[in-house]
Amino acid sequence: MIELRSDNAAGVAPEILAAVQAANTGSALAYGGDDLTADLQEVVRRVFEHPAARVFPVTSGTAANSLAISAATPPWGAVLCHSSAHIITAEGGATSLFGGGAVMRGVDGAHALIDPERLREVLESVRWGDPHESQPSVLSLTLPSDHGTVYDVDQVAKLVAVARERGLRTHLDGARLANAVAALGCAPADVTWRAGVDVLSLGATKNGALSAEAIVAFDSAIADELVYRTKRSGHVTSKMRFQSAQLAAYLTDGLWLRLASNANQRMAALVAELQSLAAYGVRLLDRVDVNMAFVEMPAAAIDAATEAGVQFYRMGPTTVRLVTSWQTTAEDVAAAAARFREACSSARDGETLTG
Amino acid sequence: MIELRSDNAAGVAPEILAAVQAANTGSALAYGGDDLTADLQEVVRRVFEHPAARVFPVTSGTAANSLAISAATPPWGAVLCHSSAHIITAEGGATSLFGGGAVMRGVDGAHALIDPERLREVLESVRWGDPHESQPSVLSLTLPSDHGTVYDVDQVAKLVAVARERGLRTHLDGARLANAVAALGCAPADVTWRAGVDVLSLGATKNGALSAEAIVAFDSAIADELVYRTKRSGHVTSKMRFQSAQLAAYLTDGLWLRLASNANQRMAALVAELQSLAAYGVRLLDRVDVNMAFVEMPAAAIDAATEAGVQFYRMGPTTVRLVTSWQTTAEDVAAAAARFREACSSARDGETLTG
Amino acid sequence: MIELRSDNAAGVAPEILAAVQAANTGSALAYGGDDLTADLQEVVRRVFEHPAARVFPVTSGTAANSLAISAATPPWGAVLCHSSAHIITAEGGATSLFGGGAVMRGVDGAHALIDPERLREVLESVRWGDPHESQPSVLSLTLPSDHGTVYDVDQVAKLVAVARERGLRTHLDGARLANAVAALGCAPADVTWRAGVDVLSLGATKNGALSAEAIVAFDSAIADELVYRTKRSGHVTSKMRFQSAQLAAYLTDGLWLRLASNANQRMAALVAELQSLAAYGVRLLDRVDVNMAFVEMPAAAIDAATEAGVQFYRMGPTTVRLVTSWQTTAEDVAAAAARFREACSSARDGETLTG
Amino acid sequence: MIELRSDNAAGVAPEILAAVQAANTGSALAYGGDDLTADLQEVVRRVFEHPAARVFPVTSGTAANSLAISAATPPWGAVLCHSSAHIITAEGGATSLFGGGAVMRGVDGAHALIDPERLREVLESVRWGDPHESQPSVLSLTLPSDHGTVYDVDQVAKLVAVARERGLRTHLDGARLANAVAALGCAPADVTWRAGVDVLSLGATKNGALSAEAIVAFDSAIADELVYRTKRSGHVTSKMRFQSAQLAAYLTDGLWLRLASNANQRMAALVAELQSLAAYGVRLLDRVDVNMAFVEMPAAAIDAATEAGVQFYRMGPTTVRLVTSWQTTAEDVAAAAARFREACSSARDGETLTG
Repeated sequence: MIELRSDNAAGVAPEILAAVQAANTGSALAYGGDDLTADLQEVVRRVFEHPAARVFPVTSGTAANSLAISAATPPWGAVLCHSSAHIITAEGGATSLFGGGAVMRGVDGAHALIDPERLREVLESVRWGDPHESQPSVLSLTLPSDHGTVYDVDQVAKLVAVARERGLRTHLDGARLANAVAALGCAPADVTWRAGVDVLSLGATKNGALSAEAIVAFDSAIADELVYRTKRSGHVTSKMRFQSAQLAAYLTDGLWLRLASNANQRMAALVAELQSLAAYGVRLLDRVDVNMAFVEMPAAAIDAATEAGVQFYRMGPTTVRLVTSWQTTAEDVAAAAARFREACSSARDGETLTG
Repeated sequence: MIELRSDNAAGVAPEILAAVQAANTGSALAYGGDDLTADLQEVVRRVFEHPAARVFPVTSGTAANSLAISAATPPWGAVLCHSSAHIITAEGGATSLFGGGAVMRGVDGAHALIDPERLREVLESVRWGDPHESQPSVLSLTLPSDHGTVYDVDQVAKLVAVARERGLRTHLDGARLANAVAALGCAPADVTWRAGVDVLSLGATKNGALSAEAIVAFDSAIADELVYRTKRSGHVTSKMRFQSAQLAAYLTDGLWLRLASNANQRMAALVAELQSLAAYGVRLLDRVDVNMAFVEMPAAAIDAATEAGVQFYRMGPTTVRLVTSWQTTAEDVAAAAARFREACSSARDGETLTG
Repeated sequence: MIELRSDNAAGVAPEILAAVQAANTGSALAYGGDDLTADLQEVVRRVFEHPAARVFPVTSGTAANSLAISAATPPWGAVLCHSSAHIITAEGGATSLFGGGAVMRGVDGAHALIDPERLREVLESVRWGDPHESQPSVLSLTLPSDHGTVYDVDQVAKLVAVARERGLRTHLDGARLANAVAALGCAPADVTWRAGVDVLSLGATKNGALSAEAIVAFDSAIADELVYRTKRSGHVTSKMRFQSAQLAAYLTDGLWLRLASNANQRMAALVAELQSLAAYGVRLLDRVDVNMAFVEMPAAAIDAATEAGVQFYRMGPTTVRLVTSWQTTAEDVAAAAARFREACSSARDGETLTG
Repeated sequence: MIELRSDNAAGVAPEILAAVQAANTGSALAYGGDDLTADLQEVVRRVFEHPAARVFPVTSGTAANSLAISAATPPWGAVLCHSSAHIITAEGGATSLFGGGAVMRGVDGAHALIDPERLREVLESVRWGDPHESQPSVLSLTLPSDHGTVYDVDQVAKLVAVARERGLRTHLDGARLANAVAALGCAPADVTWRAGVDVLSLGATKNGALSAEAIVAFDSAIADELVYRTKRSGHVTSKMRFQSAQLAAYLTDGLWLRLASNANQRMAALVAELQSLAAYGVRLLDRVDVNMAFVEMPAAAIDAATEAGVQFYRMGPTTVRLVTSWQTTAEDVAAAAARFREACSSARDGETLTG
């Protein structure tokens, strides 16, 4: 079986598991009162080059997103995000729950990225100060997007600037931030607080952690609220040192970027192979900036590849999503490519026969 | 240093860490679609002798309690619990948040245990059906209580029966359930669903897990709601197999009860030592049924014991809370007892000198 | 001044004010325990030909909509409505607040009416039972729509049928229901419960009441919840008899339909006048089924009409919304028409001069 | 029948009904954009001698209380109030709903009035800054209390001062504020903002209005939030001018205090009569500061008085609550007193006979 369903399906990176084991010595104060959590604070400040950033370890990306946003919006706010954003499509309304009834509003743009002009239009059409209309309060950007595309540093800064003109704060859903930073080759600070982001959901689980995500608040008012919001939603683990140990190992010595680079490079190699199958009707549906591709393929080829043991999500009769991870090997890519090629070939033969 | 602050301060039991490592092979579907989570389901049904119980792994006790209760109460409900219950005193209002504004109402009783007669009186004084009054909807029992005392099987059944007469459902906060079951020597089923409990918060973290608690629903309507409520509150981890592996190891071959028995027995030994210090003004403030004791002690003795490296929570000038864990050894108890004795002795000498 | 801004700007119908005065005799139990509220119950059952309908007087349309929907959806639900629906655009997120974080999802269709085929497509694309996706739970239809168009009886029944296949319940926002019933010439039952509607927001304020709207529940489970949901949101007035008196007078002897017919007929007359101004660039932007029209008109003509004392909402540089009410007279229409004509004429002259 | 059940059972004062009728001329902008609402703003500022107070008309006391408090507390707050306060006992959890899960915590004190020392103790025992504990955020005083007793100006100031030391804001539930102001003989400002109150629920319905209460915010941050919070909870009526007209009439030329004085004086007269029945076992259960009395009386006497047509609430076998209103006449009091006397007398005779 070759795993291309999701980076969530991957295991735990050895360095991170080792850190968990190493953390299991002696006893430690619960609920984040331990040394490893204090150390993590420093690691985050160093990696993000921000002396006052504050980190809140949590155990799911949905928690990170919805809590971060809830600390940045009043209950009567509207959270603007791309129509394809995870917070709208795949978090069961968590943002509205934790936001006290705040609503989400989709904004469009090509490649699953918000178009700054469209954002400006939306903001200009708002009846500001009129309580009949939910008041835009937070811009939530997803980087990489749920389609595997990335904003570059300037695009993030541009969107934040448009939002700030109207007083919105900016949240960045970085469930796969490492993949974006690795792809952009920028400093983590460049694409977050230096571009104006107020609060970040920093993913680690998909990229090799066991069960650890983090909220990183660059704004102290947001951080002050998160102290209470994380606890009262059950998102302060008692033995937090084991989450903190994972996150510290993840961010130390560039491990997070090495793991993400592997995923990105494997996907690039796979994409090159798929592009060579254009004659069979194989076609990329969008840019592939990181470790995720949406691909059109004949239905029979999809069936055949599945039977041959390639695992992926089928989004429609002739569409699949492929995702590589920190764990995907060059052999996996070669094997997947070979099976897709065979599947396409046999699918065409089948078609010819029945045609 | 001798750790008696909290069982939350203890580390991870070797069997459980081994299970996490063993789970780290291959890839697996995320969000509980993996084999280990399916296996856990069976383990829970076997251990609780209930063919339809459903388990939801989460990562904090606050999550387990507030989500379990939210699935059992309408938003206009009142959750009845002892005035000292964790859900009132130490979860930051999580029950009201997840309960959509449901309120909590304390009911009294000696030893931090609800008195059935008092419960009956409270229920009889309610204006049932009158929307001006929050309608009691859930009885939440804490076993062991936050004072380290336990209901026996009959007491649970009696309280559930009183509550049922008025249509209430029953939640059991079992953050330390293993300690209670070990102390009572009953089957886990006896003190839960056989006594009428509808939904259980089953703790594991305090008793040796890394980061794993569970909600066990014996009622299918509650379980059906939890599918949605856990996800939209960010309490479905993506790599759930690592939580499930912990819980399965915990519940298999009686590990949970062995770990809890150690904690209970160490506390019993420590209590015996403390009782021998009565002449110094050392006095238990309540029964000690499991692994937690509240003790009165001269202030100077508390100071001296602290200086001597015994770690505990000071609840007041002359009151401390002591908690043992799966990790506490006979040597720890002996050392703690010796230091308390010395502390008491030197405190008395000091008093005599200054007196 | 000629009032065409909103039917909300109109006064109280004499019959309704008389009923309020008549209700002011003696004393009466508060919170709906009075005879007038009991009588209203019977009036509603008779008018809607439903022996078990239950009515809940409230004081705003937002309250009626959001409470009615909250009693029909779980907190993890998605409420489907037209993208232009009042609950999305003009109620400040009330549905998400009272719905415990439930979300709203717009569905498209011409004339501000949901297209049944589009509804079916949306429902077919849902990942049912997957807690990552907000689960469609309620179809909310607006009749008349916020653009002044109406579904006919068959269209309502068709939409309800599509929704029911997937287990959704149906709410009808009838803030102007009287105008729709008057226009359709149907029985109130035909377009509500006989077509499958479970719960109705029945407006009265826009159509001559002082301050009275009602929720009418045709489903007893919804009604049972509303007993609590209305109270805990502050929507049970203490002297409810004065709301009930208004509603009873409104629904008795067809007053509500007479008042609405006046509004509809005045608008029809006004529309006829406006159509005669086509040569000046005056154009209806949509069908006009009841008492509201969206009209395109040269900017200079709009300015001139405003100066001449015609009051309306300007939706854009060359677009206005005109609304008639129970209070609009034939003289008002004649005067408005004359001023629009003059405004158009002078605007064209101005254009010619400067052209 | 003599009405002593509740001042909520009374009708509408003629001056207020006249104001409603007078408001019914011409058309007016909806949602508070009308002249009468603008005028009310000025009336409130004049009556309360506060140049920046802002008034929000609503239609129920529960709405006023829960919305006012929600604008003054974070969702993780605890609202401190007397254990007998209406917000705990009779509003169905509205404060927790609108407060986003904020909790209520009862503080004790004689005569249903919070004891400042007890308040100080509660505040000193809080683990400030610890998110496990709901953080006290608002002190809610009820004036008059739900037992008909009043704080004097100094007592309010003292309680506010204790609360302010810890950063709490103060809400005053003045559902019957007029009765308190009339009894105290103070300026409305003295017992509200001059004593440090931040936001006030100002009742009018119980004291002669048709359906009108108001929130008066003395703090601009609270007022800014109320703009949105009132709308999204359905508490902005569309024809607000009819609420505003009631409130303006109520507060103009001292009408509110005249109406309240009548109620207070009638109760004083009734109390004097009841005190003359001490020999029959009739006894006041608390001070009677305004228009409400709790009275102990032989069960047979209660039965007999009920049969004789005196209407009141029976709180227990031998306890009744009596309330007078703006509408209660001297004749009502004389008749009630006579019937109570007869009832007591016949009850004693009955007892003697059967004794």
